[in-house]
Amino acid sequence: MIVATKSSPFARLTTLPMDAISLTEGFWLRRQEINRQASLPHGYRKLEQSGNLVNLRLAAGLTQGSYQGLLFMDSDVYKWLEAVAYEYDKIKGTEMEQQTEQTIDLLAAAQQKDGYLNSYYQVVEPRKRWADLDHGHELYCAGHLIQAAIAHHRMTGKSNLLDVAIRFADHIDNIFGPGRREGACGHPEIEMALVELYRETQQVRYLDLASFFIDHRGKGRMRGIGPYGSEYHQDRLPVRKASQVEGHAVRQLYLTCGVTDLYLETGEPALLEALRCLWHDMTAHKMFLTGGYGARFEGESFGDAYELPSDRCYCETCAAIAALMWNWRMLLATGEARFADSLERTLYNGFLSGLSLDGRSYFYVNPLQTRGGIGRQEWYRCACCPPNIMRQIASIGHYIASQDAEGVQLHQYIPAKICVKHTNEFPLTIHVQSGYPWDGRVKVIIDEAGPSEWTLSLRVPGWCTAASLQFKGQTLNDTLMAGTYFNIKRVWQTGDEIELYLPMHPRFTQPNPRIDAVRGCLAIERGPLVYCIEQVDQSSGINIADVQVDSQETLQEAWREDLIDEIVAVEARGITCDLTSWEDQLYHPLTRESLPQSEAKLTAIPYYAWANRGSNAMRVWLPRI
Amino acid sequence: MIVATKSSPFARLTTLPMDAISLTEGFWLRRQEINRQASLPHGYRKLEQSGNLVNLRLAAGLTQGSYQGLLFMDSDVYKWLEAVAYEYDKIKGTEMEQQTEQTIDLLAAAQQKDGYLNSYYQVVEPRKRWADLDHGHELYCAGHLIQAAIAHHRMTGKSNLLDVAIRFADHIDNIFGPGRREGACGHPEIEMALVELYRETQQVRYLDLASFFIDHRGKGRMRGIGPYGSEYHQDRLPVRKASQVEGHAVRQLYLTCGVTDLYLETGEPALLEALRCLWHDMTAHKMFLTGGYGARFEGESFGDAYELPSDRCYCETCAAIAALMWNWRMLLATGEARFADSLERTLYNGFLSGLSLDGRSYFYVNPLQTRGGIGRQEWYRCACCPPNIMRQIASIGHYIASQDAEGVQLHQYIPAKICVKHTNEFPLTIHVQSGYPWDGRVKVIIDEAGPSEWTLSLRVPGWCTAASLQFKGQTLNDTLMAGTYFNIKRVWQTGDEIELYLPMHPRFTQPNPRIDAVRGCLAIERGPLVYCIEQVDQSSGINIADVQVDSQETLQEAWREDLIDEIVAVEARGITCDLTSWEDQLYHPLTRESLPQSEAKLTAIPYYAWANRGSNAMRVWLPRI
Repeated sequence: MIVATKSSPFARLTTLPMDAISLTEGFWLRRQEINRQASLPHGYRKLEQSGNLVNLRLAAGLTQGSYQGLLFMDSDVYKWLEAVAYEYDKIKGTEMEQQTEQTIDLLAAAQQKDGYLNSYYQVVEPRKRWADLDHGHELYCAGHLIQAAIAHHRMTGKSNLLDVAIRFADHIDNIFGPGRREGACGHPEIEMALVELYRETQQVRYLDLASFFIDHRGKGRMRGIGPYGSEYHQDRLPVRKASQVEGHAVRQLYLTCGVTDLYLETGEPALLEALRCLWHDMTAHKMFLTGGYGARFEGESFGDAYELPSDRCYCETCAAIAALMWNWRMLLATGEARFADSLERTLYNGFLSGLSLDGRSYFYVNPLQTRGGIGRQEWYRCACCPPNIMRQIASIGHYIASQDAEGVQLHQYIPAKICVKHTNEFPLTIHVQSGYPWDGRVKVIIDEAGPSEWTLSLRVPGWCTAASLQFKGQTLNDTLMAGTYFNIKRVWQTGDEIELYLPMHPRFTQPNPRIDAVRGCLAIERGPLVYCIEQVDQSSGINIADVQVDSQETLQEAWREDLIDEIVAVEARGITCDLTSWEDQLYHPLTRESLPQSEAKLTAIPYYAWANRGSNAMRVWLPRI
Repeated sequence: MIVATKSSPFARLTTLPMDAISLTEGFWLRRQEINRQASLPHGYRKLEQSGNLVNLRLAAGLTQGSYQGLLFMDSDVYKWLEAVAYEYDKIKGTEMEQQTEQTIDLLAAAQQKDGYLNSYYQVVEPRKRWADLDHGHELYCAGHLIQAAIAHHRMTGKSNLLDVAIRFADHIDNIFGPGRREGACGHPEIEMALVELYRETQQVRYLDLASFFIDHRGKGRMRGIGPYGSEYHQDRLPVRKASQVEGHAVRQLYLTCGVTDLYLETGEPALLEALRCLWHDMTAHKMFLTGGYGARFEGESFGDAYELPSDRCYCETCAAIAALMWNWRMLLATGEARFADSLERTLYNGFLSGLSLDGRSYFYVNPLQTRGGIGRQEWYRCACCPPNIMRQIASIGHYIASQDAEGVQLHQYIPAKICVKHTNEFPLTIHVQSGYPWDGRVKVIIDEAGPSEWTLSLRVPGWCTAASLQFKGQTLNDTLMAGTYFNIKRVWQTGDEIELYLPMHPRFTQPNPRIDAVRGCLAIERGPLVYCIEQVDQSSGINIADVQVDSQETLQEAWREDLIDEIVAVEARGITCDLTSWEDQLYHPLTRESLPQSEAKLTAIPYYAWANRGSNAMRVWLPRI
């Protein structure tokens, strides 16, 4: 899933290897522990219960019975294997390592002699191999196999899963390509996997095949679903001509991930230009405040510009994950802080809301408002999201820092030790301490400084307009611009400390007036977090359907351990309206009388933490007085 | 489709026979002419082109080939036949009469010996008859056959189609019922058809069978689609226990039509009580301003209370038709004016928008806002709406008036001659003149008065707070309450004239504060019409995405023949905002600066008339300053 970019002349920044970064404490370390201790075992049980592993045993001829579930069940197994691989150091010698190795043996046993591997087509429709590229998900599943195999190889040093993946990749390469079969998978995924396989193996033909699949798109031949045509699969226009994100949101964003990976290797300007257009359209017209994407249930798709309903948005957790992956790649390609800002927005909000605090239940869809409440589920019939969350949390360290010839860039202030080798071959060790996302004080300690000059780049988040920095007794603030990197170039000394201060005060956010769905509303944010009000936290007598927030009143924050987990809660002041006079009427002639109202205190919690105390009403956007 | 209620002790009012009412001039007569001259011939061509008639020929063994289209294609043929039947007087001797009779012959030829008739199951899945009641639509198609046959019999006096329908109804009655097969159709429709067949034939077993199907609902056994369970088919709760409209909107409202028909015959209080609850939920929580229903594309379904998005509402034309039919039945059952008000809202807005001015293209979905524009289509793969519109317009006269033992009630002020027989057996003739919906002056002339006392009831629409009436030199106004009937009981003289004045001034309408989707907006209405602004009517430099209306300014009206058809247009004053400072941003921290703005005149047209000049942006709800 994660690109370990080669230092091509076009790539500004390079992802650090997984073992270069270790989380030391705090918010995300806790989530990695829950992921390892609760989610991953839960996931394995669900793969067993839901038939994913049974399907592979059927394909391997090890058992008898019927295929279970949707036709891309294998991909859930691959995502789970990838997630476990990132935790290899910590699960070595446990039952989970055995489960991993047994699953890999099972995959090897299920793989056909020619390299083909897909339990659905082997068991259910053996004559329809590669017959329905639009909807068949065969290359999609193969892509997840390749990504899992690379992670497993990198983290464990073992090549048993990579061998399976390469056999399948070679089989695919024998079938598809110039002069061979035309086509591309309806669900992009193979593209980024093949670029990564090229990076892992140095075999240029994998890069060429990724390029072939990307170039095949845009011929208008793919069949959408329901009322959608080829735009559902991003097949309406060739990638280089597309200027709007459209169709199925996850497909769109997995495609742009693959295209960015291709750009990172080829440096073709037309690709970056198209990617910039698409990214602009996505973030300027089709992004929810939570960094979620996909406005419509119909086709799990993007909507029109400014079509951003709070209640019936889709915001699939997998689309948030795709946005994380794409923003990371765009950051590598350009070094521009806005991609890290956007990644941060999705990470702490639209992505993290997909997971319960105990790590055992999931949202597929992440609304910004519910009137009646919805609940997370332990698993889904289409269970793409849960194991996708698992691999994302296990590999979260990837998003913390990068490097280039100048030095090291810090993007996300997650407490961690970062050990890299400078391009001049000397080792550097950087220790980041922070109370993020609750506290904006960040301390960066140079534990191993190296002999010569290099640059440390610190991201000043776009939301932080009053950042300051202390170093060697000096205080800087004017030069720390929100939404840029602050660079310090010097010969560092071991023990050097930089104190970055990113003040987090709760703030009101207003929407673009063209977003009809939230007209007249404000949201509350604090640091990287979007807040919401959940009915359960409000005083009796307050119905969150009838409140209005007063933007003249100051928002108050408090560290709370009594509401839910440990959070900074925000208190807003406003009113609650008495709608008695409206009873039974949806519409009536304009009157100039205002409704009876009374003062109300509203307690807001971070959006990601909602729906952990049963099913109740919630809203992110609050009508303003 | 239309109930010709017997005067049971429970039914307050009785529908007049079709031949008792003839339209004389005006808005709806023109639409009936377009329906007859353009829509009905267009419909027959489409039934031929789309395969509906071919399917029946296949079932009759008259041709060879493959079944075409969805499995309920027969129902479109039946709706077309019903529509033509209402126009029988005017199409007698034309090609259309031949087409009708040939189609009836074809149906008779296709019908199996046991009475079964359904081209899909006869041609494609003969072994699956009645195998999938949830989704198979067999009883639904049978219901439309029965309704068409009754209309044909009543209007033409011929029984050739009724014979086919009765054979099928008897076949169904032999299969389903107490001690026979359990079950009900996933798509309600047969229920109201069977009650009407009972009225037509006096055979109580048809009423019993309707009752059986209604009672079968609510066992939670029907399988919904997508994420929906049994609520999709209104099978979650028994009808008598249901208090919320839910699931597929057309199914829900066709079911309530059938239940109301059953109540009109049995007078069972529990039924009326449940119907009142459902109607309250529908109109107090789930009704669009246009009288459209169905908030979600997903499952074509009702949403939660107050979930009423302007852009992504569904508002299927068939749901509007179902609402017309249900409101009419509730009006008969109770005599309460609110049902006629609600009918009027749907009739002039959410129903009529489904049809282009030339009668040749249709909306399946009727949004209250589009940012980019959508176009009507000449036909649909699922073409339930077009012929449903045709039968509705052809039979619009049904909604004008009713009678009871006291006299005659006027509900919709459509210019017409009404000839009825008073229950004391003397004939009455009433002539209604009006410029509705443009002009609120209504003249009612008693052409034939009868010898003794009877009551004329005139509906004062809910929107009209300043109604007045002149009769015999007297002027009344205080006693004419909006949303009630004004009754005049007397011995009438031939030539008596009543002048009712329902002043139509354009007015602003505000939404319930709980409707998040239109917070901070106003709509414009005039008389029974909802207005909208369409981009094409605005001055250059005005983007309807960026306008705000000033509710302090008076709305101006003007008769316009230059915009589109002949309409009363409304001009509003407001501003247009310059969003330059927002460019590329969806969200930003709250600032107290207001946007640069300039004055703007906005031209509004009746909502029903939009999308007749190409595809362009439209909105009903206007942000207010």
